[in-house]
Amino acid sequence: MMKEYNVAIVGATGAVGEKMLGLLEDASFPIKSLKLLASKRSVGKVKTFRGQELQIEETTDDSFEGIDIALFSAGGGITKQFSPAAIKAGAIVIDNTSAFRMDPETPLVVPEVNPEDLRKHKGLIANPNCSTIQMVVALQPIREKFGLDRVIVSTYQAVSGAGLHALEELKAQTQAVLNGEEPVAHILPCGGDKKHFPIAFNALPQIDVFSEGGYTYEEWKMINETKKIMGDKDIKVSATCVRIPVMSGHSESVYFEVDDKNVSVADIWEVLKDAPGVVLQDDTANQVYPTARESVGKNETFVGRIRKDVDVDNGFHMWVVSDNLLKGAAWNSVQIAEKMIEMGLL
Amino acid sequence: MMKEYNVAIVGATGAVGEKMLGLLEDASFPIKSLKLLASKRSVGKVKTFRGQELQIEETTDDSFEGIDIALFSAGGGITKQFSPAAIKAGAIVIDNTSAFRMDPETPLVVPEVNPEDLRKHKGLIANPNCSTIQMVVALQPIREKFGLDRVIVSTYQAVSGAGLHALEELKAQTQAVLNGEEPVAHILPCGGDKKHFPIAFNALPQIDVFSEGGYTYEEWKMINETKKIMGDKDIKVSATCVRIPVMSGHSESVYFEVDDKNVSVADIWEVLKDAPGVVLQDDTANQVYPTARESVGKNETFVGRIRKDVDVDNGFHMWVVSDNLLKGAAWNSVQIAEKMIEMGLL
Repeated sequence: MMKEYNVAIVGATGAVGEKMLGLLEDASFPIKSLKLLASKRSVGKVKTFRGQELQIEETTDDSFEGIDIALFSAGGGITKQFSPAAIKAGAIVIDNTSAFRMDPETPLVVPEVNPEDLRKHKGLIANPNCSTIQMVVALQPIREKFGLDRVIVSTYQAVSGAGLHALEELKAQTQAVLNGEEPVAHILPCGGDKKHFPIAFNALPQIDVFSEGGYTYEEWKMINETKKIMGDKDIKVSATCVRIPVMSGHSESVYFEVDDKNVSVADIWEVLKDAPGVVLQDDTANQVYPTARESVGKNETFVGRIRKDVDVDNGFHMWVVSDNLLKGAAWNSVQIAEKMIEMGLL
Repeated sequence: MMKEYNVAIVGATGAVGEKMLGLLEDASFPIKSLKLLASKRSVGKVKTFRGQELQIEETTDDSFEGIDIALFSAGGGITKQFSPAAIKAGAIVIDNTSAFRMDPETPLVVPEVNPEDLRKHKGLIANPNCSTIQMVVALQPIREKFGLDRVIVSTYQAVSGAGLHALEELKAQTQAVLNGEEPVAHILPCGGDKKHFPIAFNALPQIDVFSEGGYTYEEWKMINETKKIMGDKDIKVSATCVRIPVMSGHSESVYFEVDDKNVSVADIWEVLKDAPGVVLQDDTANQVYPTARESVGKNETFVGRIRKDVDVDNGFHMWVVSDNLLKGAAWNSVQIAEKMIEMGLL
């Protein structure tokens, strides 16, 4: 009989936690028991899982007794506070926050890209940033075949990445504008920052707070995490991260340069059409390209609009779209757990 | 006494025509008479101008008798049909469509960048594409000081650029989604194309129809027009043009490489802070950067988020925003007329 696992979701009432619950519903994931953890104020709420009602419990150091897999997605502070207890209790922590992503001891894993890094874990595996995941899923097959020298990405990121309250803010602001009223901003661009600006019918070139060199943390995440996941510090990566009024589904305009100067668009298509986790949607004659709206609810990364740069022989442009709450968060976390089972690590 | 001019607006009921009317209200523009022209179905509609009621008249070959300046913004077909009669009648045509932009005989002018090209006109001056104008306004002062080798732009374009019907579509679709209904698409991404996709809470990587090399016409416009306006075929330009659910205000993520390898962000600030038509809004410590929403109703091009590329010494990123109906269309056209008066060409 296949082994079954005791699983906990920390942050079960959040945007990502809810998607994790939905993904685990799938009967193929071998669950013995599921524990839903959140903050004190969610205690008593009930979620349905595989026909059973599950009470939300408060996360404490004692929550992880007997847990095999703890999926954390409740903010970096919660991971820092409770992951040691979870690991001590024998659980593998799969963390969707940025708390340990750049920790040299912590594998940062996208199963399509660097599954072997899972073997190096010391109890905690970090799930990369949403915008990074979909980009490396699209770039890795190209990199393996043709080498990758440089990446410049501009993102078109959905509001659900900032959480359920931000999504409510988008809807309320949008309705206000349609009613001819002033939109009120309390959360975006970044809950922890000083000023807030309307996202409704707008584009905000700030995701997370500002950091070194005029880049935001979100941009640094894309830069640093891409290099770590690909295991190559020499890949040139630069990013501009922008929030747009989309509920779910991140889109990215990705420029990249391969090492091989004789690559054609057809060569890239050939590589991507069977690449793991990638769906190629690229037929401009029939207006076939990915969009955020069409990506919602799907686990794959969708790639289209692949073009050779007008001037640079080894330069290409592409449009990469994925559901930021699924491949960008919940699905990648669940997929890490599945991959660890498959690799005999769990 | 200052000379006064007989002005006609062709396409006076459109999104851009209405903005032209608003700009000409400004008492500083020396108008003797204003004629509002449109298609037959708008005849009889009335607009108020400087306290007077003006009837919309049908555009015919006889419409331009005595007209000094004809501002065209009613689609390329209308320009091709009626501009010869306007020129023959002695009018200077300032055309906001793409009909003659790449015609070698036609100056393509952004007054801050290449005003001297106005001297070469043969009756018609082309107004560049909205997304091109704001980009070259921001790049030209940098280019003059440090040289410009390469540009890669990803756009975040507003729906009003596709006309008033597209704007109504955005609003109707948005309300539908908020009501939990399916959004219906009839116009976007491109009125003349076969398939239509919802723009509400979405990002559409298609503006205008597809053309050579997998690029859209909008992308080719940015590539070719930038080279023509700057008078330099060797500048490398590549573009990805994307429509997002913003009503007005185009945003652009612009990567550029200067010739000089010793340029700092402070050097770029220094050049842009007094550049014509540019407003520098770049203070990330205080979350100061331009947004589409804040640009609406203003004639300037707003620039912020200027950063050095992480890996390439002469590479920089910036965020460029402008009201696509004003600097991107109506204001640039009116400004061309003003500049021609100033230069004694009218």
